[in-house]
Amino acid sequence: MAIPCPPLLGSELPMEGGPLSPLSSPPQVVLTQDELKKIAAYKAVEFVQSGMVIGLGTGSTAKHAVDRIADLLRQGKLNNIIGIPTSKKTHQQALSLGIPLSDLDSHPIVDLAIDGADEVDGDLNLVKGRGGSLLREKMIESACKKFVVIVDESKLIPHIGASGAMPVEIVPFCWKFTQERLQQLFDYAGCMAKLRTNGDENGEPFVTDNGNYIIDLYFKKDIGDLKASSDAILRLAGVVEHGMFLGMATTVIVAGELGVTIKNK
Amino acid sequence: MAIPCPPLLGSELPMEGGPLSPLSSPPQVVLTQDELKKIAAYKAVEFVQSGMVIGLGTGSTAKHAVDRIADLLRQGKLNNIIGIPTSKKTHQQALSLGIPLSDLDSHPIVDLAIDGADEVDGDLNLVKGRGGSLLREKMIESACKKFVVIVDESKLIPHIGASGAMPVEIVPFCWKFTQERLQQLFDYAGCMAKLRTNGDENGEPFVTDNGNYIIDLYFKKDIGDLKASSDAILRLAGVVEHGMFLGMATTVIVAGELGVTIKNK
Repeated sequence: MAIPCPPLLGSELPMEGGPLSPLSSPPQVVLTQDELKKIAAYKAVEFVQSGMVIGLGTGSTAKHAVDRIADLLRQGKLNNIIGIPTSKKTHQQALSLGIPLSDLDSHPIVDLAIDGADEVDGDLNLVKGRGGSLLREKMIESACKKFVVIVDESKLIPHIGASGAMPVEIVPFCWKFTQERLQQLFDYAGCMAKLRTNGDENGEPFVTDNGNYIIDLYFKKDIGDLKASSDAILRLAGVVEHGMFLGMATTVIVAGELGVTIKNK
Repeated sequence: MAIPCPPLLGSELPMEGGPLSPLSSPPQVVLTQDELKKIAAYKAVEFVQSGMVIGLGTGSTAKHAVDRIADLLRQGKLNNIIGIPTSKKTHQQALSLGIPLSDLDSHPIVDLAIDGADEVDGDLNLVKGRGGSLLREKMIESACKKFVVIVDESKLIPHIGASGAMPVEIVPFCWKFTQERLQQLFDYAGCMAKLRTNGDENGEPFVTDNGNYIIDLYFKKDIGDLKASSDAILRLAGVVEHGMFLGMATTVIVAGELGVTIKNK
């Protein structure tokens, strides 16, 4: 369902109003990817109600949602919110914005989580973790009543892995061995498995919030049955978690040049 | 099959020869549990051949096997062995004994692993990790051509969890939440889930070689389908690995008062 860009609280939105509406004349200005992310994020925050426990996502799109929630708290349009950050980075952002924070141990039931995604397939399965955060997100987002995913339209893909890496978090111990086993697992899909590095000259491994490494899996073909693939990955000793979020998203909000589309499970 | 206690290399064995043989008169001396562990360990080392890559287990029973391998290397009865230790503790023991060591990254194919277990069921499924080591063991023992398990007869149980805890290694982040989810998963079997501590007054969590925590699951009843239980545990975000080693043991050597029994898969 493509709907006109909705009326949004506040006035910080790029190109608010007409230009995004399919009912109006074609847009005069091409929106940047970041502007689209912001539109999706602001739309998602409309689901937030006072008194809720909210999972706060990580990444460039989720950042806008966290900013927006802080704005509404400051304006008194929301109150009594408790945020559960999905990463150290988001924890810091939310803390600096004055959002009251807690964790899953104290608040094991989360009313709503809002987060971005790297890929969304036709069944609302996701790939997450290209930014480095996936385990804490998965813990929190599997504990929430409603999980709203916010993306720009470039994230819609025909099948998992179509636009890039599917990350797998692994223990550092004998990572090459685990990398090799992961690649073998998806040999049938032309898989290449690569250790994620910090991108510096030394090729130092990227380290997650949990002290682990990430192996990025690149598939040449559709890997097929996602649930079976998920179980096969998790069965490898040495694997901590993977970036496929299957059947978890309840709503996906997609911002595109022609407006905002909302997909429900 | 109960077989007479075999002739063993060396002379360090307790009660070597007659007293363990069912063919001889009843034992004059009751063997201690540690002596039984040693008998099983020495029997397992008979499988070791020169030139092999050997997974070196962890714990009080496996320690005897590592000692024995070192003895045979010193005596020149074995040579050209490469040991792959399954824990930091075993690494240190083997190093101090002069056993040449490597790891899975350099030697991804292990000829034989020898390790103890906390429980062995009728299908040779194991519980391991009560001593705190399970993840590295599982990585190495899932990579080996032959996995010989050595136990005294007290470890034989009718079903997994019958004699005590089934340990689960989890990330420290929001461990209470994960503990609660694990307990709920096995609610039908009267499960109690407890964080393992160091046993000191402060109740500080026990930390694994990989920087993680351990949740011990105590079942009041048989949990039923082990493969399904394994997958259900691994699907929980926050779980790194569990202590059920299903279908992995190729041989189990059991030392008891009446001799040594060898069970093959």
